[in-house]
Amino acid sequence: MAAKQQRQATASEEALMRIFTLPEAPDSTLGKIEKNISENLMGFLKESIVAVEKPLSEVEKDFQAHQIPQSPSFVSDYADDMMQTLVAHSVHTSSPSFIGHMTSALPYFVLPLSKMMVGLNQNLVKIETSKAFTPLERQVLGMMHHMIYGQTPQFYQNWMHSASHSLGAFCSGGTIANITALWIARNRILAADGDFNGVAQDGLVKGLRHYGYDDLAILVSERGHYSLGKTADLLGIGRSNIIQIPTDEHNKVDVQQMRETANDLQKQRIKVMAIVGVAGTTETGNIDPLEALADLAAELNCHFHVDAAWGGASLLSNKYRHLLSGIERADSITIDAHKQMYVPMGAGMVLFKDPEFANAIKHHAEYILRKGSKDLGSQTLEGSRSGMAMLVHACLNVVGRDGYEILINNSLEKARRFADMITKDEHFELVTAPELCLLTYRYVPQSVQQAMARARQQGQLTRLKQFHELLDGLTKFIQKRQREQGTSFVSRTRINPEPQRIIADLKSVVFRVVLANPLTTDEILQQVLIEQAQIAQQPNPFLSKLLQLADD
Amino acid sequence: MAAKQQRQATASEEALMRIFTLPEAPDSTLGKIEKNISENLMGFLKESIVAVEKPLSEVEKDFQAHQIPQSPSFVSDYADDMMQTLVAHSVHTSSPSFIGHMTSALPYFVLPLSKMMVGLNQNLVKIETSKAFTPLERQVLGMMHHMIYGQTPQFYQNWMHSASHSLGAFCSGGTIANITALWIARNRILAADGDFNGVAQDGLVKGLRHYGYDDLAILVSERGHYSLGKTADLLGIGRSNIIQIPTDEHNKVDVQQMRETANDLQKQRIKVMAIVGVAGTTETGNIDPLEALADLAAELNCHFHVDAAWGGASLLSNKYRHLLSGIERADSITIDAHKQMYVPMGAGMVLFKDPEFANAIKHHAEYILRKGSKDLGSQTLEGSRSGMAMLVHACLNVVGRDGYEILINNSLEKARRFADMITKDEHFELVTAPELCLLTYRYVPQSVQQAMARARQQGQLTRLKQFHELLDGLTKFIQKRQREQGTSFVSRTRINPEPQRIIADLKSVVFRVVLANPLTTDEILQQVLIEQAQIAQQPNPFLSKLLQLADD
Repeated sequence: MAAKQQRQATASEEALMRIFTLPEAPDSTLGKIEKNISENLMGFLKESIVAVEKPLSEVEKDFQAHQIPQSPSFVSDYADDMMQTLVAHSVHTSSPSFIGHMTSALPYFVLPLSKMMVGLNQNLVKIETSKAFTPLERQVLGMMHHMIYGQTPQFYQNWMHSASHSLGAFCSGGTIANITALWIARNRILAADGDFNGVAQDGLVKGLRHYGYDDLAILVSERGHYSLGKTADLLGIGRSNIIQIPTDEHNKVDVQQMRETANDLQKQRIKVMAIVGVAGTTETGNIDPLEALADLAAELNCHFHVDAAWGGASLLSNKYRHLLSGIERADSITIDAHKQMYVPMGAGMVLFKDPEFANAIKHHAEYILRKGSKDLGSQTLEGSRSGMAMLVHACLNVVGRDGYEILINNSLEKARRFADMITKDEHFELVTAPELCLLTYRYVPQSVQQAMARARQQGQLTRLKQFHELLDGLTKFIQKRQREQGTSFVSRTRINPEPQRIIADLKSVVFRVVLANPLTTDEILQQVLIEQAQIAQQPNPFLSKLLQLADD
Repeated sequence: MAAKQQRQATASEEALMRIFTLPEAPDSTLGKIEKNISENLMGFLKESIVAVEKPLSEVEKDFQAHQIPQSPSFVSDYADDMMQTLVAHSVHTSSPSFIGHMTSALPYFVLPLSKMMVGLNQNLVKIETSKAFTPLERQVLGMMHHMIYGQTPQFYQNWMHSASHSLGAFCSGGTIANITALWIARNRILAADGDFNGVAQDGLVKGLRHYGYDDLAILVSERGHYSLGKTADLLGIGRSNIIQIPTDEHNKVDVQQMRETANDLQKQRIKVMAIVGVAGTTETGNIDPLEALADLAAELNCHFHVDAAWGGASLLSNKYRHLLSGIERADSITIDAHKQMYVPMGAGMVLFKDPEFANAIKHHAEYILRKGSKDLGSQTLEGSRSGMAMLVHACLNVVGRDGYEILINNSLEKARRFADMITKDEHFELVTAPELCLLTYRYVPQSVQQAMARARQQGQLTRLKQFHELLDGLTKFIQKRQREQGTSFVSRTRINPEPQRIIADLKSVVFRVVLANPLTTDEILQQVLIEQAQIAQQPNPFLSKLLQLADD
């Protein structure tokens, strides 16, 4: 921190206390920054974040010191420094032309409310440190529960604020939500029984022995989120017991194959503890056949979890919620409000069909979480937590069902229009059509598309693979260069782009876009394609080889 | 929400878009609230939070609706509503006279910085959505690591920004930190070996079989945090395998007994996978003999974790860090910056002695966390996470070592002065003296103290128990009434208050205070005692019985 002035080595206590008692003056450096953020967030971000990418290794140079600074800094010096070293090289996640992330522009009102949340600094682990925030969080969970499961008013009157029940759990994100759901599933499958005190108390080994299982397994589509592997590791059942079931060409799990696998496992005395449906895969945005999965879970008598971390917000659209039909039969559901519900980072939720479920992971402690209390912490994975539920509550109220209907529908319809643009452009190929607001595509010159079609017809798989390899290089080149140029951003992933998957194990690089930002216009989308086509023409070792191969 | 005006049922899209494009006007309701928070947080909290407690059942009445509202609300109406229903009945966690929590007043500069954090809305799971925030977080972990372990500059140059190493992990709080540490410990004890692919891959049952163990166990003091039980449940080893070792009369774990227990367990083929030292118990603030525990861990060849969620910040004081001597021998350490480091809720950390440790829980995914990337998400329990590390970075820089030295020393010394006040007051009894800034005590009229001392001398345990039972009632009465009166707040817990623990299983109610708030003065502490003594005289069924029993 070169530009930094430092106080005298001996920090005076009086000066120190001022940071607790004296507000930042409006005309201080930080005061001005804040005003700028309040009055024109988009302008602030646009001005403050440098457009042209600096390599990470360069950015790291500003974060090399490994010692906590000895002397205090002036807030204004610190703020100046951070504008240069941190903010300038952060990512403009809310930009309407940055369509590769699951983040979006946020409503302005979340800024002052976030500040209020920090100022109040509640801890949701217990009533004593959160008071009204506890019923507020329970209400948000109740509303989300009702949106999915639509139980009777009596149901919510009975359980929403009941000390020994919960309709869900708030958490930092979808990973914790998935872990919580499958933790409950495991504990319910290996519940206390006779002289066995339950897996929570006696552990996995005794649990399996008691029930006569050799192992537990979780079945999920090959497109399941990586957090499920983490969950299997954490819960002690092992990553190899997350059984990945192939998907059809629309990236939806093959339920018949899942059924056969489950039957095979049961013959090997491996108990299927849960099946997981994906409602909006991270890579392609597709939704598993949830009704059929619910049927299978009923057959297998196992827990049915739906990971709708990303896609769950679509339930807020009456027009499109049928796409997730069957989700209301799930025992537990993950939804991230920080994805398509326009809440800042850190607002994950898991909802439970049955208000008793969370008792499978209930715990108490003397100084906290006393029995009979309404402390939220007795049924959550996390302990101390902030009052993030307030921001979800605010969005639900200020946006309302009518507002979300518009936002969600617009996103889905924008994705359909973008898919049309891609299809109509002779140099682009739509790889996966949008079921929700996520699609994948790539740049493939028309002559290459034609040559590939011929190769397909003639069953020339080796030749096809050559095309895909070169396209991988080109797609990566375009994606990286576009990111570096800083005007727009699409992400990339690897999937099998071959129609009917005629090359079984193919994984090729594709562009991936998520169109949740309400500020993204059709013009911006057109511009993204134009920029990508231009980058393709920049010197690179792939395009000419592709064109030549197409000519051969 | 009675006072709420609602828009017309059909939300207009144009109106909706305004929340994303038009800032809150400074003279709007929310704008004014924000100004108030910025200019005078303490005043805002004092004015906005009602002093006299409203029963939770009353508060809940405002959070009964279970349907997401159909129509959007005006932000100003929503803000008005929340001031009445939520803020008014939240907890004044930063009040200098609310000394029962681990929260404190926060420095003013965290308010605008939090707003900036929300506005930037980075996702720390990967570089693509966090860029400079990733090296910043790694630097914070490096600085914390250096504060504890004090390795060479070369060490930090090698590992702080290394893609395949980490010096720690950021997380929402101490619970996730403890889980992360013990997850690593379990995976390292049951690592891949020969044809066994490791517990992460093959699961706990195969792991135990491979290594020839019947079970795993974790040894910790009976004062260990409840999150450890949760961890044992989650990891599949079972709560009954968290072996709680008795403490001495200073609430420090009896290391010799832990050694004997460990030896017994090993004879039963139960592998001690970790021992946990507590550096600042939640109930009494005492620190386990960390050097002796480190020796024991070396003997047992197991993981040594220290839960310093609350006490770890004391390492920032050169004057008092010797109290935690031996912590630098721990394999992993939990520290919450939102406890005594003056950072808002949600800033937990776990530090790893060895930069290789976190590879025991490493995971990858195609569209994210690519191998070789510096994405933080490949070695954390959580997935998507906010940029909270920025607030810790800010505090470390603005407060500096010199500033923390003053803050920590003041807290510890204030606790010692409060202990003196209690001891000198003939109607109070200090139950546990402060080792850090936490102490417990209760109100015991002088004649009762004398009668109890006689009962002790004469070995009248039944009579002693009668006193404790009545004191339990009185302490609870005082604590609840004081909270309801709303001027000040101390918390309560149950511990064994008998010197030398002459009644073995006794658990009596005591007041518990945490003196981390720099704004808490000696006058406020004196006032807390005066109020408690006054409440004791209010009509209650305990005091007269106590005095009578003392007279008998």
